[in-house]
Amino acid sequence: MGLTIGVDIGGTKVLGGVVDTAGDVLVQTRRDTPAQDPGETADRIIEVIKELAAGHEVQAVGIGAAGWVDATRSVVQFAPNLAWRNEPLRDKIQQASGLPTVVENDGNAAAWAEFRFGAAHDADESMVLYTVGTGIGGGIIIGGRLIRGANGVAGEVGHTMMVPDGHPCGCGRKGCLEQYTSGNALVRFAKADAKARPGAAALLLGLAGGDPDAIVGPAVTEAARLGDEVAVGAFAQVGHWLGVGFADMVQTLDPQVIVVGGGVIDAGDLLLAPARASYREQLAQRGQLPVAEIRAALMGNLAGVVGAADLARL
Amino acid sequence: MGLTIGVDIGGTKVLGGVVDTAGDVLVQTRRDTPAQDPGETADRIIEVIKELAAGHEVQAVGIGAAGWVDATRSVVQFAPNLAWRNEPLRDKIQQASGLPTVVENDGNAAAWAEFRFGAAHDADESMVLYTVGTGIGGGIIIGGRLIRGANGVAGEVGHTMMVPDGHPCGCGRKGCLEQYTSGNALVRFAKADAKARPGAAALLLGLAGGDPDAIVGPAVTEAARLGDEVAVGAFAQVGHWLGVGFADMVQTLDPQVIVVGGGVIDAGDLLLAPARASYREQLAQRGQLPVAEIRAALMGNLAGVVGAADLARL
Amino acid sequence: MGLTIGVDIGGTKVLGGVVDTAGDVLVQTRRDTPAQDPGETADRIIEVIKELAAGHEVQAVGIGAAGWVDATRSVVQFAPNLAWRNEPLRDKIQQASGLPTVVENDGNAAAWAEFRFGAAHDADESMVLYTVGTGIGGGIIIGGRLIRGANGVAGEVGHTMMVPDGHPCGCGRKGCLEQYTSGNALVRFAKADAKARPGAAALLLGLAGGDPDAIVGPAVTEAARLGDEVAVGAFAQVGHWLGVGFADMVQTLDPQVIVVGGGVIDAGDLLLAPARASYREQLAQRGQLPVAEIRAALMGNLAGVVGAADLARL
Amino acid sequence: MGLTIGVDIGGTKVLGGVVDTAGDVLVQTRRDTPAQDPGETADRIIEVIKELAAGHEVQAVGIGAAGWVDATRSVVQFAPNLAWRNEPLRDKIQQASGLPTVVENDGNAAAWAEFRFGAAHDADESMVLYTVGTGIGGGIIIGGRLIRGANGVAGEVGHTMMVPDGHPCGCGRKGCLEQYTSGNALVRFAKADAKARPGAAALLLGLAGGDPDAIVGPAVTEAARLGDEVAVGAFAQVGHWLGVGFADMVQTLDPQVIVVGGGVIDAGDLLLAPARASYREQLAQRGQLPVAEIRAALMGNLAGVVGAADLARL
Repeated sequence: MGLTIGVDIGGTKVLGGVVDTAGDVLVQTRRDTPAQDPGETADRIIEVIKELAAGHEVQAVGIGAAGWVDATRSVVQFAPNLAWRNEPLRDKIQQASGLPTVVENDGNAAAWAEFRFGAAHDADESMVLYTVGTGIGGGIIIGGRLIRGANGVAGEVGHTMMVPDGHPCGCGRKGCLEQYTSGNALVRFAKADAKARPGAAALLLGLAGGDPDAIVGPAVTEAARLGDEVAVGAFAQVGHWLGVGFADMVQTLDPQVIVVGGGVIDAGDLLLAPARASYREQLAQRGQLPVAEIRAALMGNLAGVVGAADLARL
Repeated sequence: MGLTIGVDIGGTKVLGGVVDTAGDVLVQTRRDTPAQDPGETADRIIEVIKELAAGHEVQAVGIGAAGWVDATRSVVQFAPNLAWRNEPLRDKIQQASGLPTVVENDGNAAAWAEFRFGAAHDADESMVLYTVGTGIGGGIIIGGRLIRGANGVAGEVGHTMMVPDGHPCGCGRKGCLEQYTSGNALVRFAKADAKARPGAAALLLGLAGGDPDAIVGPAVTEAARLGDEVAVGAFAQVGHWLGVGFADMVQTLDPQVIVVGGGVIDAGDLLLAPARASYREQLAQRGQLPVAEIRAALMGNLAGVVGAADLARL
Repeated sequence: MGLTIGVDIGGTKVLGGVVDTAGDVLVQTRRDTPAQDPGETADRIIEVIKELAAGHEVQAVGIGAAGWVDATRSVVQFAPNLAWRNEPLRDKIQQASGLPTVVENDGNAAAWAEFRFGAAHDADESMVLYTVGTGIGGGIIIGGRLIRGANGVAGEVGHTMMVPDGHPCGCGRKGCLEQYTSGNALVRFAKADAKARPGAAALLLGLAGGDPDAIVGPAVTEAARLGDEVAVGAFAQVGHWLGVGFADMVQTLDPQVIVVGGGVIDAGDLLLAPARASYREQLAQRGQLPVAEIRAALMGNLAGVVGAADLARL
Repeated sequence: MGLTIGVDIGGTKVLGGVVDTAGDVLVQTRRDTPAQDPGETADRIIEVIKELAAGHEVQAVGIGAAGWVDATRSVVQFAPNLAWRNEPLRDKIQQASGLPTVVENDGNAAAWAEFRFGAAHDADESMVLYTVGTGIGGGIIIGGRLIRGANGVAGEVGHTMMVPDGHPCGCGRKGCLEQYTSGNALVRFAKADAKARPGAAALLLGLAGGDPDAIVGPAVTEAARLGDEVAVGAFAQVGHWLGVGFADMVQTLDPQVIVVGGGVIDAGDLLLAPARASYREQLAQRGQLPVAEIRAALMGNLAGVVGAADLARL
C-alpha cells in the first residue's frame, strides 16, 4: 500500500498530512478545532482529508483522536476536551471521504510512529511512550504490536496511582502520575514553591510580572535554564515522579525502550536528567540486569499524524 | 505433541507432574528443595523428571522457577529464596534428562495455566494473574502470548510503587505493592493493629497465645472468619491495596480478565470483597466502560506444574 | 487603671480603639497600612493614638502586630507582610505618644481578648485560639497567663507539621497545618477539585465565571452554603485538618477551651462541623476523659484591639 | 520542708527513695510490680514507703505513676500497662502511710526533676522533656510550673500526629510520634530494613542469630556503634522524626530548653545527632531567632523518684 492520510485531532487543532511508507510527511495542513460541536469537528476533518486527497493518490485514512476509542477502532467513546460521546467517527469519515478509515487514540498513534520511524525504530519488540504535555498520554507496543486493550483503552500510563489520597485527577482518581508529572504539575509545583520561597524564585517571578499565580509553563522552562532555584526544583520534582513511573513500567512490562515526548520534553535534560536519576535509583537492586533505555522522542508534533497514517495500513 | 512434564520449584518443595494437552495432571510427585545448594537442587529436579518419565512417554520438560529467568528461557539469573545466580538450568536438565527443556518464571507458568485451562480459559486475548502468597507474584498474557519482557523479567506485578517512601521491600525499592498486599503484609497489619487495639483483637490474640508477635497468616484468616475486628481489618487493608493495583493494571493494559491466586486467596471473599470494592471505586469515572472482571484462580497449587508443562510445547 | 488604647496593625489596615476595663471599645478609628515603609507605618500608628488620646484620658497603649515580637515586648523582629526587621516599635511609639507602650503579637492579643472577654471568658486557666484567615495565627493561655515563649514566638499554632514532605509553607517548612487549614488552603483545595470534577462544581464555577483559577474564598463559602459538592468538600478537608490540629493541641496542653476565630469562621458549621467530627475521631480512645470544648470566637475583628489594650494594663 | 519520699511506679518495678531539698537521693529501694493486681500494687508501694520512712524523718510522699492522673493529683484514671482504672491511689497511700501524698504522671515527675536539678536546672521559665523509652513520655514546664492540663493529661508529647493515616498507636490514633520515635519504632525500622536489605545488616543480623524477627533494641544500639548500615539507618529515622517533634514544640511553646531522656538516650549521638540535624533543618527559616537548645537528660532512672518527691513539697 502506498500513501495514506493521517489526521491528528487535539483540543485546539486538526492537523493532517499525506504520509508515505517510510513515515515521511509529503504535505500537511491544519485547521482550528471547533471543540464544542461534534458535527463541525467531523466537517473540519473531512475538509482536511479532501484537501489532502486532492493532491495525492491515497489509499486509506487514519485518525488519531484525543479520547477513548473502542476496540473496533470505530467509535470515540469519550473525549475529555472534545464534545464526543460515543461518536461513530469512522463511519462518518469513511462515508464522506470514500476512503477506508480507522480511528486510533492519539497517544497510541504517536507511540506507533516513534516505534516504527522515531526514537525506537531500532526496537523490534516493545516500547512504551510517555507524552508529557499539559497532561500525560502515551502508548504501549508489545510483540511488535500496538496494545489497545480489551476495551480499547490500554496505555493510559498517566493514570496509575502514585500518591495515596493525592492530588485529585480529571480521570476521577486521586494521586495519578499525571498530577505529578505533566506541564500542569510543573506549573503547580513552581507556583507553590514560589509563594513559599519568593527569594529563591527571583528570575521566575520576574518572568511572571512578580505574580506567582501568573507563572506559566514556558516561563518555568526559561527560568530553569537560567538557573532559577525554584524552577529547577519544579523540574526535579516532575522528573523524579516520571522516573518512578518508568521503574513501575519496567517491573510490569520490561520493554526494550522507553520514549519521552510531548511539549515538556523541549526542556531536555532539565526533565530527563532527574527522571533518569530517579529511574536508576528505583531500580537499584535490579541494576544487575539490563533495563530499558530512556530516550527523547524524535517525531515532534507530527508523531500523531504519521502514526495514524501508518496504522491505517495495518 | 502429547504428554509433557512440568516441574515447579519453590523455596521449600519441588513439585512435578505429567500433563496432557488438556491441562490434566496424570501423575505427580514431590521432593523437598535443598534450597542452599544449586547442585543438589538440580539433582532433585532430575530425579523428579526421571521418575515421571519412567512411567509415561513424554516429549519435553517445562521448569517453573521462582526467580528471574533470562529471555532465552535457559538461565535463572537470580532467585531470592534459592542459591541460584546465573544458573544454566536448562542445559543441565536437558543434558541429564535427554529431553528438550524450557525454563520459565513460576508466576508466568501459573499465569499461563490459568489462561489456558483455568479461571481465564474463556479469554482469548489477555489476562493478568496476581499470586498473593507470602509475597506477590504474577504473570501477564497479551495477544494470547505470555509476556516475558525484553530481559525476561516482565510481570513483576508486586513491585510497582504504591506508597512513596513506604515500607522497604526486598527488591530494593520502597513502598511496593507486595509490602501492602501479601501474606506478609496481612500479618504485619494484623500485628500492628493488635498491639494498638488489643481489645478489638480478642479472637486473634487468643489464637496467638496472647502474644501479638506470634500472629501468623492462617490465624488471621481464621480469626477474620469468626469476625475478629482486627483480623477483618487486616484483610480490608490488603484487599484495598490489591484493588488499587488492579485499577493501575487496567489503566495500563486493559486486560480481559484479572485472576487472583496464591495461598491468601483461600480466604475467599475476605480478600476479594474489599479488593473488588476498592477496584470499583478507583475506576469510578471509567465506570461507563466495561473493565476486566476479577476472578479467583482455579488451578490451585498445580498451576505452576501445568503451565510449565504446557509452555514446554510452544 | 482605667482606659487604654489598643492598636491592631495588619498587612492592610491600622485599627485603633479606646478600651475600658470591661473590654468594651468606646471609640475606634482606622487607617490604611503603608506596608512597605516602616517609618510611615509608625507615623500612622502615632496618628491613630493621638486621635484617640485627644478625646479620652488614657493611661497606656498596647500594639498588636502581625509579626514576631521579642520577649521584652519591645521589638518587632520580623513581619512577613510588613517591612519591619528588628523594628524598635515600643520606643518609637512611647516617645512620640508620651504613653507607656507594649508591643504584642496580634494573635496573642486576640487570644487574650477571647480569654478575658470573649468565647472563653468563663475559663480561668487555659485556652488556645486558632485564627483561620488567609493563613493561621493564634495564641495560647496557660495558668491564666499569655504564653509568649522564651524568645517571644510561642503560639505559632499554624506551623506544626501535618504532612511529611507536604505543601511548601512560607515559614520555610513543608506540610504545615496552615497549608491544609486556612483561607488559602480552602481555595487551593476547591480549585484542584473543581478542575478534576467540574461537573460537581457547577455552582462554584458559576460564581467564578467558569474559570477554576478565578475561584476566591468568599465564592467557596457561598457555593458551599448552596450545597455545591466541591465547595462543601473543600470545607470538609480544611475542617478535617483543623480537627487533627485540635487533637494534637489537646495531647500537648490539654487546655480548658479551644476557640476558632478569623475570617473563615464566618462559614460557621461548614467549617466547625467537620472540624469537631475529626477532633472527636482523633481523640476516640481518650473519649473517656473530658476534653476541651471547641467554640467559635466572639470578639470579631476587634479582638486584636481589645486584647492589646488590655495587655497594656498588665 | 525537709525530706520527702518519691516513688516511681512503672510496668515492671516500683522504685522509691528518700530525697532531700537539693534533689539528692539519700537511700533507695525497689520491688517488682504485680502489674495485674491494683490491690497488690498499692500494697507494694506502701511497703516501699514504710521501709523508707522507718529510717528517715519524712514529711510527704510523691508518687509518679505511668498513667493518666486527674487534675487533683489523687486518682489514676487509666494506666496502659497497669490494672488501674479510676484508682483512688492518693487516698489509699495517705491512709496507710499517714503521710500527705500526691500522685503525678511519671513523665511529669521526671520533667520536673530535670528542670529543678538536672539538664535544665539553669532554665528558670520553661522546658520540655521527651522520654524516649519503649514508647514516648514527657512533660512540660511553663512559667516555672509543671503543666498538668485542664484534665490532668497535658504533656503527652508522643501522641501528636506525624504521619496521616500512619502506623496505628496504642492511644487510638494513627501515625503518632511514638510510632516513629521510640524504642519500639527503632526496632520496627531495623527489622523491616534488615528483611529488605540483609546484606547491609550483617552485624545486626549476627547479633540476632540471623533472624530479623529476633532483633531487639540493645542489639540495634550495639550494631549501630559498630557501623552496621541498617542499624545506623534506624537511628537516623528515629532521630529524624524526633527532630520534627522538637520543631513542632518550638513553634507551639518556644521553651528555653528541650531535654531528651529515656533508655534510648543511652545511644547518645547516634540518636541526638540526626535529631539535631532534622530540628535545625525544620527550623531553617526561623534560624534568625534563638531557639531551644537540645540536651541529654542528666537524672537517669532516678528522675521519676526525685521529681515526685520534690513535687510532694509544692
